[in-house]
Amino acid sequence: MELLTTNNVWMMICTALVFFMHLGFALLEIGLTRQKNTINILFKNIFIITVGLLLYCLLGFNLMYPGFEEGSSGFFGFAGFGITAPEGGMTVDYADGGYTWWTDFLFQGMFAATAATIVSGAVAERIKIVPFMIFTVIYVGIVYPLAGSWKWGGGFLDMRETPFYDFAGSTLVHSVGGWAALVAVWLLGARIGKFKDGKPQAIPGHNIPLATAGVLILWLGWFGFNGGSVLSADPELTSLTLVTTCLAAAAGGVVAFIVSTALYKNLDLTMYLNGILGGLVGITAGADQMSPTDAILIGGIAGAIIVGGVALIDKLKLDDPVGAITVHLICGIWGTLAVGIFGALAGVDQLISQLVGIVSYAAICISTSFIIFFILKKTIGIRVSEKEELEGLDGHEHGMDAYPDFRLNEH
Amino acid sequence: MELLTTNNVWMMICTALVFFMHLGFALLEIGLTRQKNTINILFKNIFIITVGLLLYCLLGFNLMYPGFEEGSSGFFGFAGFGITAPEGGMTVDYADGGYTWWTDFLFQGMFAATAATIVSGAVAERIKIVPFMIFTVIYVGIVYPLAGSWKWGGGFLDMRETPFYDFAGSTLVHSVGGWAALVAVWLLGARIGKFKDGKPQAIPGHNIPLATAGVLILWLGWFGFNGGSVLSADPELTSLTLVTTCLAAAAGGVVAFIVSTALYKNLDLTMYLNGILGGLVGITAGADQMSPTDAILIGGIAGAIIVGGVALIDKLKLDDPVGAITVHLICGIWGTLAVGIFGALAGVDQLISQLVGIVSYAAICISTSFIIFFILKKTIGIRVSEKEELEGLDGHEHGMDAYPDFRLNEH
Amino acid sequence: MELLTTNNVWMMICTALVFFMHLGFALLEIGLTRQKNTINILFKNIFIITVGLLLYCLLGFNLMYPGFEEGSSGFFGFAGFGITAPEGGMTVDYADGGYTWWTDFLFQGMFAATAATIVSGAVAERIKIVPFMIFTVIYVGIVYPLAGSWKWGGGFLDMRETPFYDFAGSTLVHSVGGWAALVAVWLLGARIGKFKDGKPQAIPGHNIPLATAGVLILWLGWFGFNGGSVLSADPELTSLTLVTTCLAAAAGGVVAFIVSTALYKNLDLTMYLNGILGGLVGITAGADQMSPTDAILIGGIAGAIIVGGVALIDKLKLDDPVGAITVHLICGIWGTLAVGIFGALAGVDQLISQLVGIVSYAAICISTSFIIFFILKKTIGIRVSEKEELEGLDGHEHGMDAYPDFRLNEH
Repeated sequence: MELLTTNNVWMMICTALVFFMHLGFALLEIGLTRQKNTINILFKNIFIITVGLLLYCLLGFNLMYPGFEEGSSGFFGFAGFGITAPEGGMTVDYADGGYTWWTDFLFQGMFAATAATIVSGAVAERIKIVPFMIFTVIYVGIVYPLAGSWKWGGGFLDMRETPFYDFAGSTLVHSVGGWAALVAVWLLGARIGKFKDGKPQAIPGHNIPLATAGVLILWLGWFGFNGGSVLSADPELTSLTLVTTCLAAAAGGVVAFIVSTALYKNLDLTMYLNGILGGLVGITAGADQMSPTDAILIGGIAGAIIVGGVALIDKLKLDDPVGAITVHLICGIWGTLAVGIFGALAGVDQLISQLVGIVSYAAICISTSFIIFFILKKTIGIRVSEKEELEGLDGHEHGMDAYPDFRLNEH
Repeated sequence: MELLTTNNVWMMICTALVFFMHLGFALLEIGLTRQKNTINILFKNIFIITVGLLLYCLLGFNLMYPGFEEGSSGFFGFAGFGITAPEGGMTVDYADGGYTWWTDFLFQGMFAATAATIVSGAVAERIKIVPFMIFTVIYVGIVYPLAGSWKWGGGFLDMRETPFYDFAGSTLVHSVGGWAALVAVWLLGARIGKFKDGKPQAIPGHNIPLATAGVLILWLGWFGFNGGSVLSADPELTSLTLVTTCLAAAAGGVVAFIVSTALYKNLDLTMYLNGILGGLVGITAGADQMSPTDAILIGGIAGAIIVGGVALIDKLKLDDPVGAITVHLICGIWGTLAVGIFGALAGVDQLISQLVGIVSYAAICISTSFIIFFILKKTIGIRVSEKEELEGLDGHEHGMDAYPDFRLNEH
Repeated sequence: MELLTTNNVWMMICTALVFFMHLGFALLEIGLTRQKNTINILFKNIFIITVGLLLYCLLGFNLMYPGFEEGSSGFFGFAGFGITAPEGGMTVDYADGGYTWWTDFLFQGMFAATAATIVSGAVAERIKIVPFMIFTVIYVGIVYPLAGSWKWGGGFLDMRETPFYDFAGSTLVHSVGGWAALVAVWLLGARIGKFKDGKPQAIPGHNIPLATAGVLILWLGWFGFNGGSVLSADPELTSLTLVTTCLAAAAGGVVAFIVSTALYKNLDLTMYLNGILGGLVGITAGADQMSPTDAILIGGIAGAIIVGGVALIDKLKLDDPVGAITVHLICGIWGTLAVGIFGALAGVDQLISQLVGIVSYAAICISTSFIIFFILKKTIGIRVSEKEELEGLDGHEHGMDAYPDFRLNEH
C-alpha cells in the first residue's frame, strides 16, 4: 500500500510534467516562426492537447493497450470505447506496488498528443487549419495508439525473441511525429521566400526568449517523460534515468554549439537549443539502460546530428521552420539505434531488432500520413492562399493579432 | 510513518503547483489587456500573493479553521492570531497517515490569495491601486477565510444533514472571487471606449502568447488545486481527480471552440482558452465524485456557458476585460450545482444543499464586497482619472513601462 | 524501502525544481536589461546549465564530496574524475531511508551552475562572451565545488566545534556567486551611460512581464532549493522549511515595497520583485531552523536591505543591471548571520562561526575570481568595444536578434 501510494504520486507528477511539455512546444514553435502566424500555432497546440485527451479517452487508450491475447499476431487490437477502471482500479502488472489505472490512462494520454504537436511545428506558417485539425484527429486518435500497441501494448515488436526496445519513445513518440512531419512538409512545399535561386534563406523566429523558455520547459517536462516511463518510482531506475536524460541534454547542446561555431563562426543560440532537444530525443529510447558516459556520448552525437541534419533538410529543399524533422525524426532514429550500440542491451540481435522497429514505424507512419494529407490536398486543399501566407494566418484564419499594441515589421 | 511522508510529499507538491497558479493568473490577465496597464496588473498580483500569505499567517488560517465546538452555530470562529504547530505538528484528522500542520497551513494559504486575484483581472485597466490594495487586505484577510470556515472549517454548511459539498472550491474560491468581481465591475463602470452607442467594442489583449501560457500554467496548477484537495495521496481518489479535472478542461475548451465558431464563424483562441478555464472551474466542486463521462459533460456544458456568459456580460453592459465573471462566478455556480446532478452525490437533497451554499456565499460576498468598494468609492475613490486611464496606469501609478524598448501603438 | 522510495521521489522533484530556476534566472536577467543584449544573456544561461552539469559530472561532484578522511585539514580533497555509483547505488548517510546516489549527484549538480548564473546578470550588457565562458568553466568546475567541500563536503568549516551552518546556501551558493559578481562588475566598469556627472541613470529593463515571471519561477524553484536541502522527505522538516521560505519571500517583498514607496513615492515593481528574492536568499541559510515569526523578520529585514543595498551599489559607482550583488551577496551575508541571531541555533559561538564562514568564502571567492578576471582582462580582454556595446551584443557576438518582427527603440 505504501509503495503503491508512492509510485502513484511519482506517476502523477510525471503526468503533470508531460502535460507541461505542451506549453514548451507551443512557446518553441511560436518563438521560431514569425509573429503573423502566432495565434494560428497557439490555436493548433491548444486544439491538439484538448482533442487529443478526449480521443485518447474515447478510443486511443483501448487501442494502444488492447491486451493482446495469446496467439494474436499483435498488429491490431481494440478493447472497446471509453474508459472504465477495472475492479480495484489498480495496475499491478508493473513494478512492486504498481499504480492506479486512472494514472496510467492520464500519463499515456499526455504522451498521445505529442505526436501531432511535432508535426505542428514543421508545417507552421502555411498549412490550412481545418485539414490540420482533421489530420490531428486521425493521427492522434488512431495511428499513434495503433502503432504504439505494437510495442508498448505488447504487440508483435514486443513479442520478438529479442524484443524491440524503446524505453520512452524515441521511435514510438518522436519518430511517429517526425515521419508525419516529413511527409507533410514534402506535400506542402516550402514557405514563400524560403528558397531563392535554390538557396535556403533564413527566416528568423520572432521571439527567441519564448523559444528558449520553451526548450527549458521541454527539458523540465522530460523529467516526467523519461522518469515516468519507468512506470514506478523505483529509486535506482528513476534516478539513473534522470541523470542520463540531463547529461544527454547537456552534451547535445554543447556539441551542437561547438560544431556549429566551428562551421559557421557564430554562436548560434537556436542551434544550441535544438542540440539540447536532440540530446533529449536521442537518450529517450534507452535512458534507463545507459551509464552516464554512454548518455554523454549518445547526447553528444545527437548534437552533432542536429547541425548536420538541419543542413541536410535545407539541401533537400524541405522547409521545416523549427527543425522538427531533425530533432524528432533523425535524432529519434539515432536514439533507437543507440540502444543496440551502447548500454546494457547492446548487441547485434538488439541492433537488428531496433532496425526492424524503425522500419515498421516508418512504414505505418509514412503510409498513413501520406494517405491522409494526400486526400486532404486533393479535396479541400492543405495550403493557404499566397495572399493569406504573405499577410499571415492570424488575421485570415482567426481574425486576431498576437501583439496588437506593438508596431511590427512586415516580412 | 511511510504513508505520512508520502501524503506530505504529495501535499507539498500540490502546494507548489497552486502557488504557481499565481503566475498563470498574472500572465493571463496582462495578456488579455493593453500593454499600458501591464505593470499595474503585475504589481497587483505580486501584492496579492505576498500580502495574502502574511495575512493568512496572521489571522486567516485560524479564522478559516477555528475548530468549531459542539453546539456552535458555525458562522464565526477564531482560534487566535499567528500560527503555532500543535504538539507533534501533525494533522491526523484526514486520510490514513495525514500530513503535517505546516503543509496544511501553506496549502490553504496558497488558495487564499486566489480570490482577490480573480477580482484583479475583472477590474483591470481602470481601478486605482490603493483602494484595490485595501480591498485585497480585507477580502483575503477576513472575508475569504470567514466564508471558507462555513464549509471547509466545519461550519454551518458542513453541519447540515446533507452537507453542502464543494470539493476544491468552485464556490469557496472561484465564486467568492467572482461575486466580488461582479460587484466591483458594476461599481467601477466600463473602461472608456468599451461601449459605443450601447454596443460592446473589442479591446484586444496585447500579448496572446503570454495569455496562452497563463492558461496552460493554470491548468498545470489545477493538478495541485484539485489533486491536493483530496488532502492525502490516496491513490484512487487523487488519480481519479486528475482524470476528471483534465477531461473537463479539454471538453470545456473544445465545446467553447465549437459553439463560438458556429455562432461567430471565427476560430477564436481566447474563447478556447476561457472554455478550458470554465471546464476547470466547473469540475472543481465535484472532481472526486465524477466518472470520466460526467466530467466531460460538466466540462462541456461549462464550455457552452462560457460563450453564452461572455455575451450576457456584454449585454448587461458590464466590462470584464478577461472574462473573470463568466469563468469564475458563472461556471463556479454551474460546477456547484453539478454536484447535485451528476456523480456519486447526485440527488434532490444534495441539489438543495448546493443551492443553499450558493445563496449563502452570494449573500456574504456581495454584501461585504459592496460595503468595501462603496465606502472606498465615496471616500478616496476607486477609479483613476480619465487622463490616467487613457495614458495607462503604468506611467501614472508606477512610473514604469513594461516594454520600454518596443515601439507601441496608442489606444 | 518505502521510505527510501519516498525520499527519492521528493529529492527528484526538488532537483527538477532547482533545474527550473535556470529559466527563472534567464527570464529575470533579460527582463531587466535591454532587448539588444537578450540573445547574449540567454546564450550565457544555456551555456552555464549545460556545461555546468557536464563539469560537475567530470570533476565537480567528487571535488565537493571527496569524503575527507580522519585527520584531513578539510581544505581540499578529490575523489577522482567521473561518476560511478557505489555498490548498491544508495546514499544511506542521510535521514532514515536515504535516497540514491544518482539523485544526489543530479540535485547537487543543479545547484552548481547557479553560482555562475548569478554573475551572468551582474555583468550583463558589456562582457565579452568568450572570457565569460572561460570564467564559468573554472568557477563552476573548480571554485564552487572546492569551496562547497569546506562545509557540505565535511571540510574544515564543518569540523569546527560549533560548525558553520548554511542549510541551503545563502553563503555556499548565493554569496559565492555574489562575490564573483562584485569583482567582475568592479573590473568591468559601468555600462556606457549608466553614470552621468557621477549620478546613476536608470536604464530600464525591456520586458517586465518576463522579469516578473522569472521571479515567480525562482520562488517556485526555491521550494526545491530549500525543501530538497533537508536531504530527505522528513515531513516536519520539509514542510516547516517551505513555510519559512514562503513567509520570508512574502515579507521581503512587502517590506521592500513599503520602504521604497516611503522613500521614493512610487510603487516600484522591480524593488518588490528584488525584495522577494532578497527574502528568499536571506532565509536560505537557516530555513529549517526558524519559526514562522523568525522567518518573517529575517525576510523583512532582507527586504529593507534590498532597498538600501541598491542605493549603496549605485553610490559606489558599481553597475549591476539586475541587482545581483544586493540580492545574492548582501542578503546572502545577512541570511548567514541570521542563523546566529534567530532560531534554534542562535548564540554567540554560532554567530562567530558564521562570521568565520563568511570570511572564508569571501577570501576564496574574491581571490579566485579576481585572478581569473584579471588575467582575462590583461590577455584577451573582458569588455566589448564601445561600438558593440552601443549597438548591442546580440548582433555582434551572435548574429541574431531576439525580436526581429518588432520595431524597436535605439538606446
